[in-house]
Amino acid sequence: MKAVIIGVGNEVLYGETVNSNAAFLAKELFQIGFEVLYHTVVADDEFQIASALKEACASADVVITTGGLGPTNDDMTKNVVAKTLGLEMYCDEAVKAHIESYFNKQKNPIVKNISRQYMMPVGSTMLKNAYGTAPGVYIEQNGKAVICLPGPPSELNPMFENCARPLLMKRTNKEFCLAYYMTCGIGESALENAVRQAVTEDENFSINTYLTKSGVMLKAVAKGHTENEAQENLKARDKAVTEAIGAYLYSRERVEVWEAVAEKLIKQHITITAAESCTGGHFADLLVQNSGISAVFDGSVVAYANQVKRDLLGVSKETLETHGAVSAETAAEMAEGARRLFAADCAVAITGHAGPDVEEAGKPVGLVYISVNFKGKSKVAEYIFPQKRVNMQHRSALYAFKMLNEFL
Amino acid sequence: MKAVIIGVGNEVLYGETVNSNAAFLAKELFQIGFEVLYHTVVADDEFQIASALKEACASADVVITTGGLGPTNDDMTKNVVAKTLGLEMYCDEAVKAHIESYFNKQKNPIVKNISRQYMMPVGSTMLKNAYGTAPGVYIEQNGKAVICLPGPPSELNPMFENCARPLLMKRTNKEFCLAYYMTCGIGESALENAVRQAVTEDENFSINTYLTKSGVMLKAVAKGHTENEAQENLKARDKAVTEAIGAYLYSRERVEVWEAVAEKLIKQHITITAAESCTGGHFADLLVQNSGISAVFDGSVVAYANQVKRDLLGVSKETLETHGAVSAETAAEMAEGARRLFAADCAVAITGHAGPDVEEAGKPVGLVYISVNFKGKSKVAEYIFPQKRVNMQHRSALYAFKMLNEFL
Repeated sequence: MKAVIIGVGNEVLYGETVNSNAAFLAKELFQIGFEVLYHTVVADDEFQIASALKEACASADVVITTGGLGPTNDDMTKNVVAKTLGLEMYCDEAVKAHIESYFNKQKNPIVKNISRQYMMPVGSTMLKNAYGTAPGVYIEQNGKAVICLPGPPSELNPMFENCARPLLMKRTNKEFCLAYYMTCGIGESALENAVRQAVTEDENFSINTYLTKSGVMLKAVAKGHTENEAQENLKARDKAVTEAIGAYLYSRERVEVWEAVAEKLIKQHITITAAESCTGGHFADLLVQNSGISAVFDGSVVAYANQVKRDLLGVSKETLETHGAVSAETAAEMAEGARRLFAADCAVAITGHAGPDVEEAGKPVGLVYISVNFKGKSKVAEYIFPQKRVNMQHRSALYAFKMLNEFL
Repeated sequence: MKAVIIGVGNEVLYGETVNSNAAFLAKELFQIGFEVLYHTVVADDEFQIASALKEACASADVVITTGGLGPTNDDMTKNVVAKTLGLEMYCDEAVKAHIESYFNKQKNPIVKNISRQYMMPVGSTMLKNAYGTAPGVYIEQNGKAVICLPGPPSELNPMFENCARPLLMKRTNKEFCLAYYMTCGIGESALENAVRQAVTEDENFSINTYLTKSGVMLKAVAKGHTENEAQENLKARDKAVTEAIGAYLYSRERVEVWEAVAEKLIKQHITITAAESCTGGHFADLLVQNSGISAVFDGSVVAYANQVKRDLLGVSKETLETHGAVSAETAAEMAEGARRLFAADCAVAITGHAGPDVEEAGKPVGLVYISVNFKGKSKVAEYIFPQKRVNMQHRSALYAFKMLNEFL
């Protein structure tokens, strides 16, 4: 099955908005077995939209348009698609009801021109928009499918996942189900290779990787003639996938590593603090992105200078002189000191050489020591992240969460 | 003048990579007066590349391809473009010398197949790649220009700015020059409106806005028949632009607000610390992203709980009880306490209500107080950032840098 993606909109054409929708859809289509022939981006212009649609229909089984479904005069995708396919428009009462209830929920007055959005091509199926007013459109004609999705990714992504994908899967006569494996600490291709060596992909099972802020998300898609069969196909590989990922797996929910850790800390009533040198507060910063964290987090220290490590955290002068600020010993004493200072159950300490200058006292740029002190039990790990300063800092904080996760 | 952008490469077509190059080029082309007709993305496939090129040449004056210039067999853009335009390939000694010197500088052995990269279409101009081995290509034929740029944005962006843009500008018989205005604290459309009311755009002067991590960057492009004339056109509007931006302007270099502030602190030998509540270390985190910051930053405190505000920072019990943790008074005492604790010249304190829960004790979600204590002089500001938790935290830290900048 072949697919074409048409982006509609001046804001994308003129570069104000990056066309991330095409990348999202291409990846999704690929994984459910569609071959994407090309993507294109055209202006909010009747002639251009119609030409692109005709050209796409000539070679593809499925054509997806993105954007141009809003209530303004610029938004013409639905009308042009209907006209090009020779379909009349009618006022759809179900669409009208959905949009009115959307406005009621938001407690906003209904905007002008909104009645444009009630109109649908005759014979089309509405795709519900859970995060906006513009409904999507699904049309079948001459064995081909044309799908119109809204432009904002926050509306498009869930609409594709919840409404369009199931309809497309029907065209392949298959049911499908998904599993997510969230990893931290392993590169994208290393993860892909490890999993591909452990399980065989076929038309009923495939994996794909996506970069996240925490690392890499592996998504597995299983298919079957029934939902049960799809589930079975997923389950049959789950053990092998999980084992291939090993300790890099931190969650099976779509959450970042700091969200997974914060949730466990809050649930288990374990208080936490931190002593950060090279990361300068980045660990704490990620931690407080979680609402409700105040139940387990009182505060932390950024100890950039040695004097602060000594005075506030009680790292001994001897340790700093003998082993240096970037050492396992200093990291351990920092964690211990922070735990004492904030009377917390556990503490994380991070000390490293973020660069970008050359090595200091025989310690290479990127060297970092992370210590977790968990209710008195201490663990220290050494890493080298020879990246750009800010990437080294982010990775150090991520690994600290990953280490902490192993205690929870 | 009309332009088309063709992205070449399976990684873009299948969504592994988002096509940010098209957005970058579209914005750049628009600003130097080219109308972008459409973008498209095709596979690493001879037939598809050739078809897309022929179609583009039929309607556009300038066609830009991105990607497919590497040394592997998949990388075929240069050859297909030459073949489609009826040009022979030859081994270009200047390209060869440039690539060999690139490898020598990197101290890496020359990779296999690299000799493919020495080949250039007859009559083309090489576009130097300062950040990789793949040279770009500029071809003029029948009054049209075809430009091949490499895929990685880190190579494409500077190659466009330094090599391709000047050649395109020649086609418009104009010289041009640029000015950057970095702002923090004003929205994109508000900034655009303010500046557009103050200066008139014409074919020799235009502005464009770009979101940055600190806020919005305004770029002004001036043109003229000579470089001098272009400079004059820029200068003639500079005062009006600067006044329209007002206090939101933090730099005229392309730097983030925390970079601008850190540079001034280091240059002026002013030591800094911070006491953060709702931002949980984000201010310090941004500060230590600057190398060399250790000269003026010893450390800071994340004081999330009231007890830490009291015990470590010396905020009085009375202040906390009378005014609450989210108040101007608490912010001022936090800054004072941090300045004392770290014996620093200046201190920043941030305390707010990050949400997402409903208001607390009559204080709405998003309310934040930022205090700067600069060598004993104290300033406190109140803001409401009713955004998502992480955005509220980021904005609070940005505004703290902006306030600090006004003292420097």
